[in-house]
Amino acid sequence: MPTLINDTFIRALLKQPVTRTPVWMMRQAGRYLPEYRKVREQAGSFMNLCTNPELACEVTLQPLDRFDFDAAILFSDILTIPDAMGLGLTFTEGEGPKFSKPIVHAADIHNLISPDPETELRYVMDAVRLIRKNLHGRVPLIGFSGSPWTLATYMVEGGSSKSFAKVKGLLYEQPKLMHELLDKLSVTVAAYLNAQIAAGAQAVMLFDTWGGVLSTEDYAEFSLYYARQVRSLLNTTVDNQQIPTILFSKGGGLWLESMADSGYDALGLDWQTDIHSARQRVGHKVALQGNMDPVALYANPEVIAQKVKTILQQYGNGSGHVFNLGHGILPDMNPEHVKAMVDAVHEHSPIYHQQG
Amino acid sequence: MPTLINDTFIRALLKQPVTRTPVWMMRQAGRYLPEYRKVREQAGSFMNLCTNPELACEVTLQPLDRFDFDAAILFSDILTIPDAMGLGLTFTEGEGPKFSKPIVHAADIHNLISPDPETELRYVMDAVRLIRKNLHGRVPLIGFSGSPWTLATYMVEGGSSKSFAKVKGLLYEQPKLMHELLDKLSVTVAAYLNAQIAAGAQAVMLFDTWGGVLSTEDYAEFSLYYARQVRSLLNTTVDNQQIPTILFSKGGGLWLESMADSGYDALGLDWQTDIHSARQRVGHKVALQGNMDPVALYANPEVIAQKVKTILQQYGNGSGHVFNLGHGILPDMNPEHVKAMVDAVHEHSPIYHQQG
Repeated sequence: MPTLINDTFIRALLKQPVTRTPVWMMRQAGRYLPEYRKVREQAGSFMNLCTNPELACEVTLQPLDRFDFDAAILFSDILTIPDAMGLGLTFTEGEGPKFSKPIVHAADIHNLISPDPETELRYVMDAVRLIRKNLHGRVPLIGFSGSPWTLATYMVEGGSSKSFAKVKGLLYEQPKLMHELLDKLSVTVAAYLNAQIAAGAQAVMLFDTWGGVLSTEDYAEFSLYYARQVRSLLNTTVDNQQIPTILFSKGGGLWLESMADSGYDALGLDWQTDIHSARQRVGHKVALQGNMDPVALYANPEVIAQKVKTILQQYGNGSGHVFNLGHGILPDMNPEHVKAMVDAVHEHSPIYHQQG
Repeated sequence: MPTLINDTFIRALLKQPVTRTPVWMMRQAGRYLPEYRKVREQAGSFMNLCTNPELACEVTLQPLDRFDFDAAILFSDILTIPDAMGLGLTFTEGEGPKFSKPIVHAADIHNLISPDPETELRYVMDAVRLIRKNLHGRVPLIGFSGSPWTLATYMVEGGSSKSFAKVKGLLYEQPKLMHELLDKLSVTVAAYLNAQIAAGAQAVMLFDTWGGVLSTEDYAEFSLYYARQVRSLLNTTVDNQQIPTILFSKGGGLWLESMADSGYDALGLDWQTDIHSARQRVGHKVALQGNMDPVALYANPEVIAQKVKTILQQYGNGSGHVFNLGHGILPDMNPEHVKAMVDAVHEHSPIYHQQG
């Protein structure tokens, strides 16, 4: 493997000195890019794109050719795991993911079998290997997985949900069964992330997209507990290099203290959470990633640059900040606005990294 | 006006001693009740129901005949104000509210005229008067309004939204214009609530349903600032009786400290916020209302009673707690489950109100 040329992202996550704040963007490989839409059309379906390592590699690298991002993120979907567990994933245009065989009965949970990442999810590992190779060490590659709780919501609801009535019904009425499901998913997620690390991922992120729909008590018991389980099972040293880990619970701003104690190197912040207070609350324990409102990217480039400056200033001096949006970029965004954000981060961040 | 027989709700909001924790429920008059659905059908449309004082009174009182609630809440909609401002409100089944004339141009904001509550919104005031009369002092009547920010989101988006791209676009790119709109709405909302108080409302609540979609900084500037403006314009003493005020910003758990300084007597809590920590953070300044997960009401009555006991215990000893859900009841809920919740609050709360 070639050595890493731009390691700013890794260094910031580990709070080692950097000369500027690194930046990447959730869903940076995606529909807002015309070159992505072309490959997506060529692939025929979203799942065809995910399962084809060459195409997944191509779209992963696309945003790096346009913007000065400091990291690449594997192009994939968080639902590859339940699909590999046999739930039958499909994506319908405009309707989001659907499982043809969602979890309905207790037996569906008892009978779940953890997929072997290098066989049932080999297409993901092949994509990781291919991307690492084609990156030629430009920037690090981030691997990822959905969190056990977030995967469970889709598996029980059969797709997206507004009220989460089914999965919360299971949680409230049959908590033991819910724990059985989350236990299985924790082992599976950890194996999946370990395989990505073995294949070449240089950092990993756990997306807990739906942790924020739980009460404080339930978040601790059903989401964070299993994020910690996953973390404890990860192999985070490869060739004497540390693989940094990031936990992102959307809507988790209230719970940063307990998240910071879960073993991850960094926490993702949504845009509602003030990064200045977040750093005061937990910044001595973890790095922070975020957190511009994705909708702010609709504004004109001057406003975008101003928003960037505000967030950089709110975080303040020193390493430990990775700039990002507070959630994924919106699919109808103008790519020029992304450029305005990325360039503003690089232009305005060096003053926060001057050595004493 | 008859004297109030059950004043527990008012006393709890003012932190005066009570013998049990009062309980009511957001959307307690609504679709989950067969008797409501009957009147709704009779009315022909949702707006017909809102604008007919006799029918609005009838559905307001329905839940009190079924459950031992400690307060009634005016049956109405938060969008009556923009409708009276001429935006043309309609409700389409399954699609939510739509405005035929949303705010598009700056002139639409300049030209907005505040409605006179006793003329353009007389149907609301007539409903308040009729409900007060027909309550015969059983329990207090809560009046309400949407917050300036929340009303602005619907007025600019033209209805419900997922990303709030239009209203945030206005906020980011033309903040002065946004402030002009929010200024006008603050005056209008205050006049509307004052008219409800004059007509007989014994407490008022400001619903800031969409405050939680903003960043910390923007919440302070565009939502909370105007909630405070509204509060400063309210006449909260009627016949030497204090009219308690409640502020509910859904998703506002991170900002309770500043909300508690905004002049309201009580804060509504969503279910994600832990009521024990909330009381520690702000309970010396305000009462707290909430905060069971509405989805938990799908569980069986034993689980519901357990959830109620947990929340009562989390709040702890003494007055200052009004039990409620953390958001409105879901329309397909079994009314028997509501009974389980209400009865559990009354059964398990007296131990927290024993006098030294």
